[in-house]
Amino acid sequence: MNADQLYVNILEKKSFLCIGLDTDPEMIPAFLKNTELPQYEFNKQIIDATHDLVVAFKPNLAFYEKYGSKGWEALEKTCTYIKEHYPDIFLIADGKRGDIGNTSRMYAESVFYRLSCDAVTLSPYMGRDSVEPFLVKDKWAILLALTSNEGSADFQLLRMEEKGSTLFEEVLEKTSHWGTTDNIMYVIGATKAEWLRKVRAIVPDHFLLIPGIGTQGGNLEEVITNGMNKRTGLIINASRSILYAGTGHKFTAAARSATLELRQKMGSCLR
Amino acid sequence: MNADQLYVNILEKKSFLCIGLDTDPEMIPAFLKNTELPQYEFNKQIIDATHDLVVAFKPNLAFYEKYGSKGWEALEKTCTYIKEHYPDIFLIADGKRGDIGNTSRMYAESVFYRLSCDAVTLSPYMGRDSVEPFLVKDKWAILLALTSNEGSADFQLLRMEEKGSTLFEEVLEKTSHWGTTDNIMYVIGATKAEWLRKVRAIVPDHFLLIPGIGTQGGNLEEVITNGMNKRTGLIINASRSILYAGTGHKFTAAARSATLELRQKMGSCLR
Repeated sequence: MNADQLYVNILEKKSFLCIGLDTDPEMIPAFLKNTELPQYEFNKQIIDATHDLVVAFKPNLAFYEKYGSKGWEALEKTCTYIKEHYPDIFLIADGKRGDIGNTSRMYAESVFYRLSCDAVTLSPYMGRDSVEPFLVKDKWAILLALTSNEGSADFQLLRMEEKGSTLFEEVLEKTSHWGTTDNIMYVIGATKAEWLRKVRAIVPDHFLLIPGIGTQGGNLEEVITNGMNKRTGLIINASRSILYAGTGHKFTAAARSATLELRQKMGSCLR
Repeated sequence: MNADQLYVNILEKKSFLCIGLDTDPEMIPAFLKNTELPQYEFNKQIIDATHDLVVAFKPNLAFYEKYGSKGWEALEKTCTYIKEHYPDIFLIADGKRGDIGNTSRMYAESVFYRLSCDAVTLSPYMGRDSVEPFLVKDKWAILLALTSNEGSADFQLLRMEEKGSTLFEEVLEKTSHWGTTDNIMYVIGATKAEWLRKVRAIVPDHFLLIPGIGTQGGNLEEVITNGMNKRTGLIINASRSILYAGTGHKFTAAARSATLELRQKMGSCLR
């Protein structure tokens, strides 16, 4: 999937929402807990209930790895289910990977081919040769730039000597030349919307993946005002506020309603 | 395991060598390829043949994730095998993880409890709250500081405005206050031994994990001269040069001899 195709999907669905599949077996309805793969059973129902309202799903790999090979099985089945039933969905492996070249190649095979994902989140710390194995046709590297957590200030906001820009600006500047607007996106923390203007000054045409809407408290309007570009250029993620919107047998209806509400706010900006 | 216990193991074994289990099913002897879990079968034999000569094993998670849940099963069994048979081994999950707090907590549970590892490699890019969930009793966070690949120059060597130090020095300086010499180590690329003196000026007492000896071409003597401290303070990793030292049924004998050779060089520095 390239940026134009992603934009077409956004227009058709009137949504640039992504649901983060941070599926915690302790938080899912009791009647699903005793199934063979509770995370998969829960995900299937969330996916069926919301797929027409979102452009992307983003499994958070840590939540599956906590359960080892069994968790990876739930992850594989979730990804296969999405790609088989809803092939237009943009599927993001949220793993914050990145290593030396021959190891990054293994991660690329894992997320792009084993899991059939379209994209993977990466840490830029190890530099160009740790990112390049992910820059393959029709796949995407989503690089951490400015994250939404408190610790983002520790290194991402440090100022560099020569240009006086911050590390995250240097990451944007440098990495944007490693690929194109068709294979690189950036993670930008929604709770730092005042920084979005700085981001757009460096990468006006790239897509941004914005976590932190919903439970983490980011402001949707501010993100849209400062971050949107001519192809929308935004994928906005919500996880817990949708997954755990309701309890018991009504969890899918509650998840759909929470998704509809967020999508409605987005749809009005796309008109 | 704390730093003193690790040092005792180093003295007893006369070795601060770590074998990286970057196990590639395409590179292992043909007679192991058609087993149920070829990576596990190969690892078991490497581990049995070398455990008395090394202080640590370091499975590289990417090599297992390439094979999805089946790969994770081989990884789990490898870790269980090591901890059951050789409990004094320091076991490192090489995954370069790191995410917001609640996600890092899941990764910590995955590597420390699901895989029974003593340590995990982490990227520092997301800052303090992404590292803290790994700073638990008797476990270790091994932070990327200066890596051995070409791309390390892209960000790690950038100079900061205020102090004029490089990003990797800032990482050492700042993160060394987040934990202690009993729960934080650093990844320092062996091929940059001239930087080791700078590293030791900031973190004289921490253990360093040094990859890049062997196939990646680092110089062992230079690392020892510039990096050793009063508790050795070094874990030196070799992967491919040991795993694939020999072929066919003689691969374990060849692996043992390659390990012995490296350990001999180390042992002489410990006297």
